[in-house]
Amino acid sequence: MSEIKKPYDQLSPAELKAEKEVVEKKYQELKARNLKLDMSRGKPSKQQLDMVSDLLNVLSKPEDCMDGKLDTRNYGTLDGAPSAKALFADLLGCKPEEVFVGGNASLTLMYDTISKAYTHGLLRSPKPWCREDKLKFLCPVPGYDRHFAVTQSFGFELVTIPMTPEGPDMNAVEEAVKDPAVKGIWCVPKYSNPEGSIYSAETIKRFVNLKPAAPDFVVMWDNAYCVHEFAQDYVPFPDILSLAKEAGSEDMFFEFASTSKITFPGAGISCFACSEANMAYMKKLIGIQSISSDKVNQLRHVRFLKDKAHTIELMKKHAAIMKPKFDMVLDTLEREIGPRGLGNWLNPKGGYFISFNTPDGLAKRTWELCKEAGVVMTNAGATFPYGKDPKDCNIRIAPSLPPVEELEQAMEVFCIALRKAALEKLGA
Amino acid sequence: MSEIKKPYDQLSPAELKAEKEVVEKKYQELKARNLKLDMSRGKPSKQQLDMVSDLLNVLSKPEDCMDGKLDTRNYGTLDGAPSAKALFADLLGCKPEEVFVGGNASLTLMYDTISKAYTHGLLRSPKPWCREDKLKFLCPVPGYDRHFAVTQSFGFELVTIPMTPEGPDMNAVEEAVKDPAVKGIWCVPKYSNPEGSIYSAETIKRFVNLKPAAPDFVVMWDNAYCVHEFAQDYVPFPDILSLAKEAGSEDMFFEFASTSKITFPGAGISCFACSEANMAYMKKLIGIQSISSDKVNQLRHVRFLKDKAHTIELMKKHAAIMKPKFDMVLDTLEREIGPRGLGNWLNPKGGYFISFNTPDGLAKRTWELCKEAGVVMTNAGATFPYGKDPKDCNIRIAPSLPPVEELEQAMEVFCIALRKAALEKLGA
Repeated sequence: MSEIKKPYDQLSPAELKAEKEVVEKKYQELKARNLKLDMSRGKPSKQQLDMVSDLLNVLSKPEDCMDGKLDTRNYGTLDGAPSAKALFADLLGCKPEEVFVGGNASLTLMYDTISKAYTHGLLRSPKPWCREDKLKFLCPVPGYDRHFAVTQSFGFELVTIPMTPEGPDMNAVEEAVKDPAVKGIWCVPKYSNPEGSIYSAETIKRFVNLKPAAPDFVVMWDNAYCVHEFAQDYVPFPDILSLAKEAGSEDMFFEFASTSKITFPGAGISCFACSEANMAYMKKLIGIQSISSDKVNQLRHVRFLKDKAHTIELMKKHAAIMKPKFDMVLDTLEREIGPRGLGNWLNPKGGYFISFNTPDGLAKRTWELCKEAGVVMTNAGATFPYGKDPKDCNIRIAPSLPPVEELEQAMEVFCIALRKAALEKLGA
Repeated sequence: MSEIKKPYDQLSPAELKAEKEVVEKKYQELKARNLKLDMSRGKPSKQQLDMVSDLLNVLSKPEDCMDGKLDTRNYGTLDGAPSAKALFADLLGCKPEEVFVGGNASLTLMYDTISKAYTHGLLRSPKPWCREDKLKFLCPVPGYDRHFAVTQSFGFELVTIPMTPEGPDMNAVEEAVKDPAVKGIWCVPKYSNPEGSIYSAETIKRFVNLKPAAPDFVVMWDNAYCVHEFAQDYVPFPDILSLAKEAGSEDMFFEFASTSKITFPGAGISCFACSEANMAYMKKLIGIQSISSDKVNQLRHVRFLKDKAHTIELMKKHAAIMKPKFDMVLDTLEREIGPRGLGNWLNPKGGYFISFNTPDGLAKRTWELCKEAGVVMTNAGATFPYGKDPKDCNIRIAPSLPPVEELEQAMEVFCIALRKAALEKLGA
């Protein structure tokens, strides 16, 4: 039986029936394979981890642990080993004195920034945020569930801002920040999670010129994928802190980055970068919480990554592992989903995700059918505040972890699950 | 001129004058040496760090990073690598499922516990602590400045509880917890900071049977020096969580520990241990802040330290480096200060400090004179809430960092500074 490949809304009743038979049979076959595949999170693969495992060996003797005159093994130096501050400054294009180097997770630095705003207030806060009557935070959608969860956990009302191919819809942002209860916005300026969009120069210009009603409005600038191209050469990005300084808005920005997807996801180093006034303020607060982060691991990373140029070379090796996976997913969608009119998606050139939109109302059911057949995808709805996608259409595909051959099976399941969900909806 | 060695309050006017001449001359001589010595913090010495630097080499290949089936390099496993949970459970005598393994600093875990109580509330909190009208916290004195600073930073009123040789004065504690605004207490149960006292069985019994008015009262049980003897064999301590469970108070305790003074102070691993109900509650909150701490470093520690028995053997090597330093300080005090009646102190057998009491009103001046002569001591008053020692008499001596020969000079300065301060007070 040859497969029918045309838009579902153009299928005749007989064709629908035939399609249903094909899809049901195939779905049962796939279920019978008892698969256990995971495309849920942006986890690097074992192959990538092995590739960077010389990181384990760059420090081996006591004298290796000296960062100039600083013995990284001992207590102290709250804001990080000087060479690690310099490395992140090189990566981000800012100044070393604007960098605070933390532990293994930028998520923790982001949480702690919001937490300190809540308990103590930020530099320009009239009072701690826990003393405000109402708190709101802007969430570009589709976006990153862990960002949204942080502000949800602190009781913020999460306000949806639509994403465009150039970044968040700045008309909507500029309108929203007129509300003094709106305290900030989550941003992933390069290879946004999940769409892989890069904020345009115009978007960034409008960000640094934003005039929010809240004097302590904070832009959470999560530069998670700043050197993470997999399908093109390195794309330069502007230093947000310099641009903000020119616009007189430098205290509004906290930039975050990490090596989680450069070296070891669970054992990398992270940083935030901010104005020197913010830095002085934050160091006073963080000095109560910490004596320093793990400076030995910071130095290990400096010795391994060396500088931005060398890091970009390493990212090309990651790209060589990542690209075939993304190609496989995109080719499969192109071949199996496109002709049937069952969704649309962007072609990312970097980052870790593909943002896929089903026809309205099919995402949850597709996710369920995948799960039933042993394929775990990111929860449908996860890319929206409160996990609620109003159109029930967005699914984040994370192809990085499984080997290509597993990914192939997972995508087979995904496509059949989506076709089955669509047929169910059509009442076929 | 032979030195006069008798109590200052028994000196004749002529003897006072002679003593003053000796002390002034000596102090000027010492100042002229332009010393730069640091006895301010409980930092391990370079010799200790070098001794444990094979820690850098225990993981070198990708397969070394497997903790059973868990690849420690990747994301995940919020509460820590299973083998690291087991190691801390072994050290503390609790169950692995009661252990949450964190990053390089137990201070951060302590801060975060108080912070989460403040922003979200603890398991038994009627509401987040930021919604309470008044917050108080009990601070045994002399105690640890960083503990006090955490609760001060969150706006608690710090309530002083006197220390006894058996631990905090439990009559005072039992009285204080009748106030529902009193939300917790800071404890260092073994080798208390700075006195080096070990809480007695009776004190611990009264702790687990405490009936505070606040339903969410928390005992911050900082077991920082649980295996840190330097002048005697390992002293066993009871598992506070089991004892609390017997008394039905297990949700009242958060125990903390770390390897900061076992391996690298800045690059060790830390944990908290608590009831399973607390653990389930805290994991939900921490899951928003973190995906996991650095599990590679956790595994590195497991491979290096192996188990409690092996760790205690290692601590004997630390003791061999520490003991001569403490002996030197104690001998000097015995020889120079005791006969002159210028203070009293305890003889600790473990921990990192000597708690020294000058006659009333001399601590700040002694500290200043030390500083002027190039010797940095812990701030006088630091061992009290708000840095205010009501009798201005306690000074924490931290002999661990400098080599013995430097320590000898620092103690020479300290003794002369104290004698000078005493003479000034006597109007000599």
